[in-house]
Amino acid sequence: MRSKLLASQTAHSSWLCIGLDPAVERMPPAVRGMDEPLVGFCRAIIEATSDLVCAYKPNLGFWLAEGVAGLAALQTVIASIPAGIPVILDGKFGDVGHTAAAYARFAFEQLGVDAVTANPYLGIDALRPFLADGERGVFLLARTSNPSAPDLQDQPVGKQTLYEHVAQLAIQWDAELPGTCGLVVGATYPGELALLRSRAPGLPFLIPGIGAQGGSLSAAASHGPTADGVGPVINSSRGILYASSGPDFAEAARAAALVLRDCINEERQGDEETR
Amino acid sequence: MRSKLLASQTAHSSWLCIGLDPAVERMPPAVRGMDEPLVGFCRAIIEATSDLVCAYKPNLGFWLAEGVAGLAALQTVIASIPAGIPVILDGKFGDVGHTAAAYARFAFEQLGVDAVTANPYLGIDALRPFLADGERGVFLLARTSNPSAPDLQDQPVGKQTLYEHVAQLAIQWDAELPGTCGLVVGATYPGELALLRSRAPGLPFLIPGIGAQGGSLSAAASHGPTADGVGPVINSSRGILYASSGPDFAEAARAAALVLRDCINEERQGDEETR
Repeated sequence: MRSKLLASQTAHSSWLCIGLDPAVERMPPAVRGMDEPLVGFCRAIIEATSDLVCAYKPNLGFWLAEGVAGLAALQTVIASIPAGIPVILDGKFGDVGHTAAAYARFAFEQLGVDAVTANPYLGIDALRPFLADGERGVFLLARTSNPSAPDLQDQPVGKQTLYEHVAQLAIQWDAELPGTCGLVVGATYPGELALLRSRAPGLPFLIPGIGAQGGSLSAAASHGPTADGVGPVINSSRGILYASSGPDFAEAARAAALVLRDCINEERQGDEETR
Repeated sequence: MRSKLLASQTAHSSWLCIGLDPAVERMPPAVRGMDEPLVGFCRAIIEATSDLVCAYKPNLGFWLAEGVAGLAALQTVIASIPAGIPVILDGKFGDVGHTAAAYARFAFEQLGVDAVTANPYLGIDALRPFLADGERGVFLLARTSNPSAPDLQDQPVGKQTLYEHVAQLAIQWDAELPGTCGLVVGATYPGELALLRSRAPGLPFLIPGIGAQGGSLSAAASHGPTADGVGPVINSSRGILYASSGPDFAEAARAAALVLRDCINEERQGDEETR
């Protein structure tokens, strides 16, 4: 997963990931009237942006909300993503071993994605099936981007918080099968992001929360890549997908993606120059 | 959710829940050869057992592992469950607010289930969409049944463990919309189960882990119902579904379910007599 991600970041000079979270009610009327609106919409977005991103991240919830047709559309859309671009299935999986194996079969065999997001609450058992293949990977939730993240994640566990404990476990789990584990850290909490970057210098970050959720682009971009050069995967969904509600939505998505990619690269360059 | 569950527990004198976790490779050859093996298998199980259970719990992972056909089968199977029996979708959902709303739409509108399981790691935001309708409910993971459950769940948070902290949060969250919240507590940890029953006397329990996972039936059954009479929902999956690998699988499932229901009732009665 890491080498594919690094190759794609280098080829496209990009740390930008586009979240594929299709909501039919926000699509342009012409798309809504199509036979397969989710496929039509997302394919147009992908065609317009695939040279600007390092990854795509479909969020499973939005596809399941459309039922069987939604899942069929997800499969079609993933198959249309150019082969060199990693796909991260945002399913936030977390279940006991034999069920986790079923989810891994779903993600890696049925959908053919490169990585998933997973929840740490059940411990390592719940992750092993996703880590079994060195080519795939898991981004483990550490500090999420939502307002109630502190309910559990900020609880003090000994001398550190629970999310720091999770980062520590992720470092251990990654050592079991090197190169498979990363962390999800929300851009809405810049202090926590900085702290985790220093605690886990070897783990790639998936950073949601910029744009609609109000997270800091500067915080997301400025902490630099991992020790072996894998940059953060900085996700934007709504700000790109719904940049225009007119028939020019794909063109507008490209324009928004270009601006965001370049802003990220500026922050990144600024940071590299001051080091 | 609670009143429907209590009605079904009373009508069938049962705290038994059957987990619908279909694995095609474990089905009888005749079923495997059918056009829709998941539908054929699960419908036969439901027809043979619906007067013996208080609920059914389909585990989303096993259905998604079969792709689009699996999700279509899940929808068909859920629609075939008799109206009075609650259906708990075991999806272990946990995502930020607007995505949680998409999963709630999937569970309650697309599939029409009565309750879901959810993960507490993201805090209350991730649950609100599931709690918005007083008729539906959430079973929140507190202490899971798997070997690595202690990795996070047993961490000390102040003077208690993380899973006790989660139980406390669940009591608060249930107070926001009374009658909607329950806890998932594995039968594989009898001590933790007893502790949580005393800490959260008002919250219904969903108890996985008996049978194949080696949990204690006595521990699962003996702590009695909530203060308002809702008994624990004691789940068995593999021990019932695969009681026979021959053409008599449905009959064998009924026999296994009957034994289990009656064992639970004996434990329950024994406990009620000694009180």
